[in-house]
Amino acid sequence: MYAITIPEPGGPEALVWAEVPDPVPGEGEVLVEVVASAVNRADLLQRQGFYDPPPGSSPYPGLECSGRIAGLGPGVSGWAVGDEVCALLAGGGYAEKAVVPVGQLLPVPEGVDLATAAALPEVACTVWSNIFMIAHLRPGETLLVHGGASGIGTMAIQLAKAVGARVAVTAGGPEKLARCAELGADVLIDYREQDFVEELAKATDGAGADVILDIVGAKYLERNVKALAVNGRLVVIGLQGGVKGELNLGALLAKRAAVMATTLRARPADEKAAIVAAVREHVWPLIGAGTVRPVVDRTLPLDDAAEGHRALESGTHVGKVLLVAPKG
Amino acid sequence: MYAITIPEPGGPEALVWAEVPDPVPGEGEVLVEVVASAVNRADLLQRQGFYDPPPGSSPYPGLECSGRIAGLGPGVSGWAVGDEVCALLAGGGYAEKAVVPVGQLLPVPEGVDLATAAALPEVACTVWSNIFMIAHLRPGETLLVHGGASGIGTMAIQLAKAVGARVAVTAGGPEKLARCAELGADVLIDYREQDFVEELAKATDGAGADVILDIVGAKYLERNVKALAVNGRLVVIGLQGGVKGELNLGALLAKRAAVMATTLRARPADEKAAIVAAVREHVWPLIGAGTVRPVVDRTLPLDDAAEGHRALESGTHVGKVLLVAPKG
Repeated sequence: MYAITIPEPGGPEALVWAEVPDPVPGEGEVLVEVVASAVNRADLLQRQGFYDPPPGSSPYPGLECSGRIAGLGPGVSGWAVGDEVCALLAGGGYAEKAVVPVGQLLPVPEGVDLATAAALPEVACTVWSNIFMIAHLRPGETLLVHGGASGIGTMAIQLAKAVGARVAVTAGGPEKLARCAELGADVLIDYREQDFVEELAKATDGAGADVILDIVGAKYLERNVKALAVNGRLVVIGLQGGVKGELNLGALLAKRAAVMATTLRARPADEKAAIVAAVREHVWPLIGAGTVRPVVDRTLPLDDAAEGHRALESGTHVGKVLLVAPKG
Repeated sequence: MYAITIPEPGGPEALVWAEVPDPVPGEGEVLVEVVASAVNRADLLQRQGFYDPPPGSSPYPGLECSGRIAGLGPGVSGWAVGDEVCALLAGGGYAEKAVVPVGQLLPVPEGVDLATAAALPEVACTVWSNIFMIAHLRPGETLLVHGGASGIGTMAIQLAKAVGARVAVTAGGPEKLARCAELGADVLIDYREQDFVEELAKATDGAGADVILDIVGAKYLERNVKALAVNGRLVVIGLQGGVKGELNLGALLAKRAAVMATTLRARPADEKAAIVAAVREHVWPLIGAGTVRPVVDRTLPLDDAAEGHRALESGTHVGKVLLVAPKG
């Protein structure tokens, strides 16, 4: 098969479409003929040499895919060759074939075409696990999403609105904010022009956010703690603004608040399976009903994944960048 | 009645036993004739002028008491004048009489005398709410308790052991550690001589602590994060070592860990009532069965609360310092 390989870490041009051995499904795994994958920020880090795949997973980038089951490893039941699926991967989605632990398979949600389904597993699993399973966002609470126009952001807005929460977003510029508003965001903050702590305080009568989903890390730590409500939960899932920051434990204590940091990719298979099962139970019906929709910024050929990486690096995208396999 | 008042903030001598008006129970409150109270570290801060009582609560120190119900405010049911009780207070325990929201009353546990019962509400509610309701310590997990010989520490060791967790403690010196071992602590770390990160790693094959109960704050933040296991939860309930510290979000993210900070006193009455109800359900039977015991360092007259404060400040105590009212 062909896959996107990274012979040497570097810029987008480091991604090379090359012939590689077919993967073989092991115990409890299936082989998927990939129709599409999608670009995640972690792929950019992996390309630059900053994010090695977890031990035992594919060396190729790609944390999600959609396609058709082409083979079953030993001990797999409940799925058949030919089934149309999408999947959460620890790597290897940028390829013509991928192996997937059976617990990370999802059916294609009703009303979504097979290629587009590749845009869903990472954002659905990341948002559901962090906002609901970890931070326990409740109806009536306020969620602040940094990067509201990102793949994660567009899913977070829709899911939080679907459960009856109020959603504030930050994004860069009025166009992105308009897209966030279309998806249901209630409070729109242009981080280029406005201070999010101040704007959020205005919008919540000084109460702040019950949950913050953050991709910035250190640079926002102090302000995120300031923006938290009493009993607030800050969930950090990205470190685009640095790793180490000053934490005001006194402020945190006065608010009885929490700072959590998580990553999906490194979780063991059983935790991923629990998340995937929860997503299938809670998110898939919302997608099937049209309440929550995949947001695709653009679709590119998988062998031109470099262009997809450039799109994410330029920061002009809204939602997901889809990569469709040559035979997809 | 008489109460310990604080005419001017200062050292232990700032505590003055003086005649003050009797408190009057309001809607949903009872009046308790106090038999005993106990010293908490927050009382020391209040005496120094660093910790004002929450709005609406008594100006006198004292976060817990035991005694007999002497009067019922409007709307109170389920309790009668003469009932022997202990109670979690937002203040006012250092007095001959105290008013208590009914949700913060507890019966005296079986096998505990009325005065000694005053040593239980704060530690039981603090430990149960933080370790179990917030950090969800599970059987088989490892808990690290800083200050294992403190009132909080002695209760945390016993409760964590009772639910089947493994317990590591830090304390200053072999005598305190020996007392922690008697209470069930498995891993004993003398913070004066040993590095707790290193010792904990040795004792857990490098895994670290699933839950850390911390009273130090900033000074321990970096090392606490290092000492956390994957999926670990650091719960900060005191800031004896400072307020602001550097947080390594990268380390937190790699471990999918959380830093929480809480305080019991400032919680609204409904949250306190929920905690008190959980303590009555889960902790009281363990005390009744003798599995968990109050640990009292010494008993002093309430009008000499100053001596109790000196005892806590000297750091030589193990467990609680009880204050018995003159007529108790």
